[in-house]
Amino acid sequence: MSIDVDRERFVETMKEQADIGGTEDGGLYRLTLSEEDKRIREWFTTQMEEENLDVTVDEFGNMFGYREGRNPDAGTVLVGSHLDSQPYGGIYDGAMGVVAALELVRTLNEENIETERPIEIVNWTNEEGSRFQPAMQGSGVWAGEHALDEQYAQTDAEGNVFEEELERIGYKGSVPAEPQKEYDSYLELHIEQGPYLAEHDAEVGIVTGIVGFTWGAITFCGEADHSGPTPMHYRSDALVAAADVITQIRRIPGTFGERTVGTTGYIDAKPNSINIIPEEVTFTWDIRDPDPDIIEAARERVLTEAEYASEREGVDWEYEDRMWTDPVHFADKCVGAVAGATDRLGYDSMRIFSGAGHDATHMHKLMDTGMVFSVSENGKSHSEKEYTSWADCYKAANTLANAAFELATE
Amino acid sequence: MSIDVDRERFVETMKEQADIGGTEDGGLYRLTLSEEDKRIREWFTTQMEEENLDVTVDEFGNMFGYREGRNPDAGTVLVGSHLDSQPYGGIYDGAMGVVAALELVRTLNEENIETERPIEIVNWTNEEGSRFQPAMQGSGVWAGEHALDEQYAQTDAEGNVFEEELERIGYKGSVPAEPQKEYDSYLELHIEQGPYLAEHDAEVGIVTGIVGFTWGAITFCGEADHSGPTPMHYRSDALVAAADVITQIRRIPGTFGERTVGTTGYIDAKPNSINIIPEEVTFTWDIRDPDPDIIEAARERVLTEAEYASEREGVDWEYEDRMWTDPVHFADKCVGAVAGATDRLGYDSMRIFSGAGHDATHMHKLMDTGMVFSVSENGKSHSEKEYTSWADCYKAANTLANAAFELATE
Repeated sequence: MSIDVDRERFVETMKEQADIGGTEDGGLYRLTLSEEDKRIREWFTTQMEEENLDVTVDEFGNMFGYREGRNPDAGTVLVGSHLDSQPYGGIYDGAMGVVAALELVRTLNEENIETERPIEIVNWTNEEGSRFQPAMQGSGVWAGEHALDEQYAQTDAEGNVFEEELERIGYKGSVPAEPQKEYDSYLELHIEQGPYLAEHDAEVGIVTGIVGFTWGAITFCGEADHSGPTPMHYRSDALVAAADVITQIRRIPGTFGERTVGTTGYIDAKPNSINIIPEEVTFTWDIRDPDPDIIEAARERVLTEAEYASEREGVDWEYEDRMWTDPVHFADKCVGAVAGATDRLGYDSMRIFSGAGHDATHMHKLMDTGMVFSVSENGKSHSEKEYTSWADCYKAANTLANAAFELATE
Repeated sequence: MSIDVDRERFVETMKEQADIGGTEDGGLYRLTLSEEDKRIREWFTTQMEEENLDVTVDEFGNMFGYREGRNPDAGTVLVGSHLDSQPYGGIYDGAMGVVAALELVRTLNEENIETERPIEIVNWTNEEGSRFQPAMQGSGVWAGEHALDEQYAQTDAEGNVFEEELERIGYKGSVPAEPQKEYDSYLELHIEQGPYLAEHDAEVGIVTGIVGFTWGAITFCGEADHSGPTPMHYRSDALVAAADVITQIRRIPGTFGERTVGTTGYIDAKPNSINIIPEEVTFTWDIRDPDPDIIEAARERVLTEAEYASEREGVDWEYEDRMWTDPVHFADKCVGAVAGATDRLGYDSMRIFSGAGHDATHMHKLMDTGMVFSVSENGKSHSEKEYTSWADCYKAANTLANAAFELATE
């Protein structure tokens, strides 16, 4: 049994939300707890109320809309994503996941369909992590991964405090930021943010999990000497050692797994003057893979290369592990529901691991979780160049609705 | 005919000057136009007046002490260096060159020696370039390389204006900052700031010239993508391209001249975030050699490597030449005078090219010029670790005095 999201209404709703904080170049500037965030929350509240959902806002600003099921004791199916954006981000990203959840409810209401399990749709606070850190903050608090008070105290670049900004926009609710009922499962639709689906001509991604990652930083300490009179063989150049390791990090993915990626995103050199040999250079690693053994082996390889570079250049070195996230493998039940939906709907789909973290990462710790990906043209995201055709957006939304419907029906 | 500088007096004078702005760890913090610079200038004025020199200060603060010669029409021999220091610099650097010039005059006065040519000793304003840019500023203005007004307008990191600071310490003189008489030659004693003399067990360096250099910057422009979902083969990573070229700059000296050095001292990455692939990276080159053809060939090699790296990473690139200084070859007359002095005095000497720029660079454009180097232990300079034994300091000072005496006598 299938349901059928109204394509025209879905696209219109997508355009409506994209107008709130929309940029001149067709992107979205809707930072968490900003005026634009306030307006999109008001808009979302109205949409939920129009569907007669029981709307609640928790003390961290996470917004929920509850639709009763036939069996009030059955665990609820939670469906949603986030409405905030990066600075000059795209209009799809997480917003499509919230609109698709809304469309699920609208479709069920329109068809007067009663589900066995209750369905709840959700807009998580601050998924992006660009104004306040960390990313996936609202779902992280709700899942008990972060302490509420610590997160309230976070400040943005201008020194504004999270809790005050949440109160200012009127979305500090009274409900505790933690599960208030029994949940069965969580489903989330998001754009892929990578090129795999497009490369394989797939319309919809059946997400089987989320890669894990290791973050860390290496610091080389050499000697700051004058770049003129100091012969090459006298030098202990911290930047040359860093450059050595950065090129090795570029190569690491070629010697480990098919999906391994390795990045140096940050570098800082001291004293950073054209005619002084760099004394101290700090740079980071970010290595991801679906397999934790590969992540660990690649991390070890980076440290080994740092040791080699330190010997070659005669510089001291140290490193600091900054974060480790285990890969997530989604529940068979949820992956199966998504795969079943694409089968029934006749969409070209493929199974895919997510390269980025999502609110689903936190939900996975609480309940059976799954995700649907839409194609990202050229893999672009967090950019005004982010693009997915309405046809592909619709297929992903319809997949989400049908998978959630199946989970709520079983 | 030789003269003999009084070693004890020379060492005492070195210690006296090192007390003015001396640091706890035996270094010197005597930034140009600071209170310490004012005090060392007052001290230097007193020393010159005690030797009955005709003291003048020009409008840029360059200080001169003139001693008449037998033939008032003969070109003057100019001898000196600079009394300012880097932050936490060493006590030898340029100060020894000024003290040695003072000792030349003291020795001639003590022995009642009249020279054929007049002798003038000099303390150049702001050789270091650490508080106000550029380095070698006072000698550059005096040589007509920099416009006076532009240099007056330079500001330090706190926004203090050069001209106001010069007036504040009372050393904006009335004499135009340009040659006021005919000069025959210029001699300067400085520490080597490199390890060559020590490596070759030489006590004194007969400086034959100063290396030339090219400065420039390369910018790679790639694409800022999410470090997770972006596969390696989709990336255009500006930092990887930069790292490639930085390691090549490290290798360039091994394929060009014996004295070629290449350095990347500065790097800036954007957006510089651990989980975003670097979009734009700018870094510098600094390549030096005694041979201009080698400098040019090495610069071309860097640009070729940048082209290769840009192709490999699929990033755009551009470059900017920032400075070019031709190598300086000192006058045979001056090099011969220094070499003759070390021969007569029986010092172990070697001919050496300077890897760093000096006030002599500017003087070379106006008159026959030469330099004497003292050993720098471990090649350290611009550091409190800078060290030269008093025995070696003395030999360098005595060499300078005898070489200048020869030039003034001929």
